[in-house]
Amino acid sequence: MNAELISVGTEILLGQIVNTNAAWLAQRLAELGVNVYRQETIGDNLERLSMAIRESLDRADILILTGGLGPTDDDLTREGVAMAMSLSLEEDGAQRQWLEERLGQRMTENNLKQALKPAGAIILPNPGGTACGYAVPADGRWVFMLPGPPWEMEAMYRDHVRPFLQRTYALNTHLYSRILHFIGIGESALETELLDLMRRQKDPSMALYAKTGEIELRLTTRAETEELAMAQITPLEEQIRNRVGQHLYGYDDDTLFTVTAKMLLERGLTLSVAESCTGGLLGNLYTDIPGSSGFFCGGWIAYSNEMKMQHLGVPAEILERYGAVSARTVAAMSQGARSASGSDLAISISGVAGPGGGSESKPVGLIYQALASQEGTLLFRNTYSQDRLRNKFRAAKQSAYLLWLYLQGLPVPAANQATLEN
Amino acid sequence: MNAELISVGTEILLGQIVNTNAAWLAQRLAELGVNVYRQETIGDNLERLSMAIRESLDRADILILTGGLGPTDDDLTREGVAMAMSLSLEEDGAQRQWLEERLGQRMTENNLKQALKPAGAIILPNPGGTACGYAVPADGRWVFMLPGPPWEMEAMYRDHVRPFLQRTYALNTHLYSRILHFIGIGESALETELLDLMRRQKDPSMALYAKTGEIELRLTTRAETEELAMAQITPLEEQIRNRVGQHLYGYDDDTLFTVTAKMLLERGLTLSVAESCTGGLLGNLYTDIPGSSGFFCGGWIAYSNEMKMQHLGVPAEILERYGAVSARTVAAMSQGARSASGSDLAISISGVAGPGGGSESKPVGLIYQALASQEGTLLFRNTYSQDRLRNKFRAAKQSAYLLWLYLQGLPVPAANQATLEN
Repeated sequence: MNAELISVGTEILLGQIVNTNAAWLAQRLAELGVNVYRQETIGDNLERLSMAIRESLDRADILILTGGLGPTDDDLTREGVAMAMSLSLEEDGAQRQWLEERLGQRMTENNLKQALKPAGAIILPNPGGTACGYAVPADGRWVFMLPGPPWEMEAMYRDHVRPFLQRTYALNTHLYSRILHFIGIGESALETELLDLMRRQKDPSMALYAKTGEIELRLTTRAETEELAMAQITPLEEQIRNRVGQHLYGYDDDTLFTVTAKMLLERGLTLSVAESCTGGLLGNLYTDIPGSSGFFCGGWIAYSNEMKMQHLGVPAEILERYGAVSARTVAAMSQGARSASGSDLAISISGVAGPGGGSESKPVGLIYQALASQEGTLLFRNTYSQDRLRNKFRAAKQSAYLLWLYLQGLPVPAANQATLEN
Repeated sequence: MNAELISVGTEILLGQIVNTNAAWLAQRLAELGVNVYRQETIGDNLERLSMAIRESLDRADILILTGGLGPTDDDLTREGVAMAMSLSLEEDGAQRQWLEERLGQRMTENNLKQALKPAGAIILPNPGGTACGYAVPADGRWVFMLPGPPWEMEAMYRDHVRPFLQRTYALNTHLYSRILHFIGIGESALETELLDLMRRQKDPSMALYAKTGEIELRLTTRAETEELAMAQITPLEEQIRNRVGQHLYGYDDDTLFTVTAKMLLERGLTLSVAESCTGGLLGNLYTDIPGSSGFFCGGWIAYSNEMKMQHLGVPAEILERYGAVSARTVAAMSQGARSASGSDLAISISGVAGPGGGSESKPVGLIYQALASQEGTLLFRNTYSQDRLRNKFRAAKQSAYLLWLYLQGLPVPAANQATLEN
């Protein structure tokens, strides 16, 4: 079973948009055991599009097109498929009615295009937008058209295309992966610890990926059921855990944020934040987690010194003598947040995010963090990059790491230790 | 002059890597006035690769391949080009010597592959890695092979391929774009307002793109200098502004956040935030802007009702009677934040981000916002989607929209109006 992907849109062809849809679909098809042999990008041009579709249908069993299903003149995927397959475009009554109900007064003449389908096509509903998708039969092969916006495309694939493919082609084996997340160890050090396993091991396969501030190890095998796959993966995972388990913080979709959130919920602990340079990012990342109100009280975005003094009780003399970016300031911020919110734990962050504001003693990228608890205050220091957004993200992530260390009862690594004199 | 791009690599085909090289090259070629009509991705397979190269050479004047130039068995781009063009692979003495000097002891048998070139090819040096690039003549057309790692590919394009193309094809003109950002108007409505222009207008060209909560219009023309390009673009821009200028909030890299930040700085106004369901996202987005400390004081992440009452002074009876997601609550939050921070303006947000917590009267996606100023309090209401992260982002963006409306002296649109009784 092999598939090809065609991404439609001049904005991709001109490089104005990076094509993430193709990568996402390729991964999903690999999971099903469908080989993707070719991906193409074609602009909003009817001749070239229908030509590319015809060529793909000569090679592939499954063709998936994304994009070009909007209401405007340069949305041409419907027309391209119809031309390539010599089908007429006809109005689908149910789809027209659905559009009219959804759009009401806002319905314009050009929206009517979105009620058209190539003769014989099955409509795939799109709860997230006005562009429906299509499945078009082509002599035992199938052509799918999905909308371009990733969230609409992904939902339509999951809800309609994947079950359709599994049913139609009896796709019984699946690719199963188990991802292990490591923190506090570098990629080379981790590879050195596991090198003999990685060289010996063919199935499940092992692959290391360096992510921002952490390392991911992916164990992959193909099997008919998850149970059979896990019977392959679990013994290998155990060997790995025996060697480097102290750095293993989670599995699969886990992040440092979800893992620490779960630990807080399990232990009935509450958290507040006091953010300076991250400007609310840490709170934002914790509140991305559904149910975060079970442990997250909220906090302060103490961006100005006035906010730090008036609402978190940071003494003016500390700000004057040690500066806003100092161990003493973050210690006072975390203690102030803990006491003003009544939370069990409070995390504070203050640093030089950049690009301006750096000095010789406090360079861009220097960031302090503190964690206040009933046992006292933990301090954490790191120097990141020259890049403002990366510095903010790394600092937020390190805060979750600091919380994880505290909840695991582990010490702050020597390289990150700070004292009140810093 | 038209070009095609082929990205080589099974890791892209499987979706393990998102292909950013194609977008980068497409932008650079567009700047030179070279049309890219097709981008393809092919895996590490000699037959399929040479077939795709042959097909591209039937259509394009310029073919650029990226990736597959490493030393290992599955690096097949050299072989694929040689096979497609019926050329032999021969060793390049100078390249072999360069490799031996660079690698010394680390030189392995398979590195010798990297000294091979298709007969007649010009070697393009790579100071950043062991893979050289190639320019291969093909009956007046040219095939380029560039390494896969983006930094090596980009440097090689800039230093060797671009000057080569400019010289060979006498490319003197450049593509210039002006992007207009619209808010408060849908894609169909905007297109309807501009349809006659869009149909008539060929140069500068006009293209509409729907982005999250806003619409982008791109005006593009080709010229020898930026001045000549703007002489083409400006009169068209003026016609557009005359029709829909009330929805035009910015140009090019502007966002609602940067535009409102600039207005605040210019008028010497300060801003604080009181965020419930967005959990710090609004503060985070404003503090992504370098220099935001010039207008942003900070604020409160008032996630729990206790935070809303104790630190923002929201009366308990409002929370009891109207709920945390209500016009009265956001009004009190914004007034509380304004007075406690001493800022000129304060924005508050409270809503049901989802996926849980919705009810019949307060469904998932319902979000209230308020803006407190010395003139009083503006209210804003919208219902978004079922998706938690999207709801948070849309709400943060609408807050910047509310601020923009206020700073422009424009009313809240009828569809978004709320009263204290909601």
